[in-house]
Amino acid sequence: MARSPDSLESVPPPIITLLTDFGAADVFVGSMKGVILGINPHAQIIDLTHDIPAHNIRAGAYLLHSASSHFPPGTIHVAVVDPGVGSERRPLLVTTRSYHFLAPDNGLLSYILASEPKAEIRELTAKQYFLGTVGSTFHGRDLFAPAAAWLSLDEPTDAFGPKIDNPVRFEVHQPQLEEGRLVGEVLHIDRFGNLITNISQTLLREALGTVEGAKVQVRIKNADVQVLRHFYADAPPRTLAALINSDNLLELFCNQGRADELVKAEIGARVEVRVS
Amino acid sequence: MARSPDSLESVPPPIITLLTDFGAADVFVGSMKGVILGINPHAQIIDLTHDIPAHNIRAGAYLLHSASSHFPPGTIHVAVVDPGVGSERRPLLVTTRSYHFLAPDNGLLSYILASEPKAEIRELTAKQYFLGTVGSTFHGRDLFAPAAAWLSLDEPTDAFGPKIDNPVRFEVHQPQLEEGRLVGEVLHIDRFGNLITNISQTLLREALGTVEGAKVQVRIKNADVQVLRHFYADAPPRTLAALINSDNLLELFCNQGRADELVKAEIGARVEVRVS
Amino acid sequence: MARSPDSLESVPPPIITLLTDFGAADVFVGSMKGVILGINPHAQIIDLTHDIPAHNIRAGAYLLHSASSHFPPGTIHVAVVDPGVGSERRPLLVTTRSYHFLAPDNGLLSYILASEPKAEIRELTAKQYFLGTVGSTFHGRDLFAPAAAWLSLDEPTDAFGPKIDNPVRFEVHQPQLEEGRLVGEVLHIDRFGNLITNISQTLLREALGTVEGAKVQVRIKNADVQVLRHFYADAPPRTLAALINSDNLLELFCNQGRADELVKAEIGARVEVRVS
Repeated sequence: MARSPDSLESVPPPIITLLTDFGAADVFVGSMKGVILGINPHAQIIDLTHDIPAHNIRAGAYLLHSASSHFPPGTIHVAVVDPGVGSERRPLLVTTRSYHFLAPDNGLLSYILASEPKAEIRELTAKQYFLGTVGSTFHGRDLFAPAAAWLSLDEPTDAFGPKIDNPVRFEVHQPQLEEGRLVGEVLHIDRFGNLITNISQTLLREALGTVEGAKVQVRIKNADVQVLRHFYADAPPRTLAALINSDNLLELFCNQGRADELVKAEIGARVEVRVS
Repeated sequence: MARSPDSLESVPPPIITLLTDFGAADVFVGSMKGVILGINPHAQIIDLTHDIPAHNIRAGAYLLHSASSHFPPGTIHVAVVDPGVGSERRPLLVTTRSYHFLAPDNGLLSYILASEPKAEIRELTAKQYFLGTVGSTFHGRDLFAPAAAWLSLDEPTDAFGPKIDNPVRFEVHQPQLEEGRLVGEVLHIDRFGNLITNISQTLLREALGTVEGAKVQVRIKNADVQVLRHFYADAPPRTLAALINSDNLLELFCNQGRADELVKAEIGARVEVRVS
Repeated sequence: MARSPDSLESVPPPIITLLTDFGAADVFVGSMKGVILGINPHAQIIDLTHDIPAHNIRAGAYLLHSASSHFPPGTIHVAVVDPGVGSERRPLLVTTRSYHFLAPDNGLLSYILASEPKAEIRELTAKQYFLGTVGSTFHGRDLFAPAAAWLSLDEPTDAFGPKIDNPVRFEVHQPQLEEGRLVGEVLHIDRFGNLITNISQTLLREALGTVEGAKVQVRIKNADVQVLRHFYADAPPRTLAALINSDNLLELFCNQGRADELVKAEIGARVEVRVS
């Protein structure tokens, strides 16, 4: 290797990611970045997405979980989908084996907490890490952004507030085995119209004993898929098809089309898998 | 504190922000970033927004003013909403107490200039800071981006062109007191449908003698709001409500809905405030 | 000059640009950035655009060519519009005089290869530069992003895979001279509704002997333009007009309107130029 990624000559900039429902047409996100850089001008700020549907905590929770795990250890993830901003809902700092997460206590970290049962959970209370004047409508800028920036300067987590053990979590639906069928649901519809389900390859193998493509049958709405494909172009055009995707989840798709339109499926739609 | 934000070990990268009406589907913005990094590869480039409605100078002016103030001193703000590109309109470099602004001379800096009466205003004329071949249709890439990059390398402002004292400014409407009512207007509608007005908390207090929520009444279109809330979730769902927002401006909103659709308001809509 | 852009004190961060059809509402792009920063935390990642119409290789090819040339030498450009992901289509590393390009072998680099006949073309085969588990549906994250990150650490290109000489290229249509008329087509419609053609200023001069605005006449659909303008505001409002744009290409536009709506033109529409 020509150069080590951990070269001695300089400390890598700390990474702060942002995921919000603020959209791109306003300057909410730009303002958060200004606040971060005012505290730590060396921070490397990365957008996960700002197009979470407005106030849709479940959508944000899924995409945060999906994207955050691809970042290097030490990354600070800030997530703000926050219809209850300014109310009694608490701001959280959650530290897992690899990352820090800053987010409102409204379920946005449900998937993170489900997969990280030993995470350290703190209520963000230390006002010295907030902007001087924290308003009641924009905690992304006034509270989460500055706290993340101070954290990126290696402030210890115990300085940010006390540990708590009762964060708000929505129920993460697990697929169920019903009469030999594994029954799950659509978690997310991506920009190509692909339907991502909560049925993992691991679960398929455990519940049904195989993930051999030729034997797996999938049913959604009134449509049936008789085989798992290996990649998108592997399926006949404009028909419903299925595969295990890059996050190891069962995904329904339509080569040269949109699966969501083809079967008129929405988030939460029931998905059944059985073995022939 | 574990590490100083102004650590000795390295100079923080200069910050250049971009605000345009170029959208995200083209590569205008990407080209500007390439030009900047070709001159100063250490620049930290931050997007404010690129979704200003096409050619809408007033919308750009408002959002530039709103976002720019959250950045650390020394930040260079580039704003390009420029229907008159290539014509006689001048390119400007405006230096305030904290920032540099580069923008076409078409009113885009009206709010900045209104709040910074002692700003130094220069016409950008020094061709050594432009791309070799400045076209007539894309000054964002050929003129403003390279000038900003050179400025980030600490070139002195007087090298960029002569001072001028007659920049183009549109009239910034100030709320007026009419028969005991403070009359203002909607400045901006954000992605959540919230209606941000030009009536500040300071002005409310001065003109009406109070900002006590229970006494303040707001009228827009044919709808009345009888009280100021403290945060969004504080209001009953799906009704028109009002609060002082994170920029200290009166804002109309609808908890679990969109205020703009509820009252069919547009930018410029009249807003009246009185005290009961 | 106050400070050299190549200051001795620190090595500039390597630049990696991203152009995809992944959109902004998902976290595909965020995941790619996480992978890159996990390998080279010093990389400066720049978005060209992620709003290429889904699976539209030609649109991506044009915008990649348009934007990439504005970056400094050494920039690594990653482009992913990849309907055939997981199939037999090869992943490529193309090295030109100034840049590296990583992209699927599906025509996305057609314009780059057309203008860089001596480019070094390699198939990306060296699995040590990919993520440990390369899936079949997301090579942007599992293959192109990590390969780009390793390349930014100065790994030599010959370590990435063998040279090939038969990359997939779609035919780049060149304008033709027909009965004294130069006949080209619309390459791209930008966010302002401007119609960018494949007719360059150089070609106009060579084929017709002049680019003097008063003598050049343009025909598209049933509309005629009698003169070339110098900039947008130079044309009467709400009429079809033409100019040579910032990429030296003939462009049809409508001052204070949209040319695409005015003449109902689409990508590929025929454009004729003659001299009066």
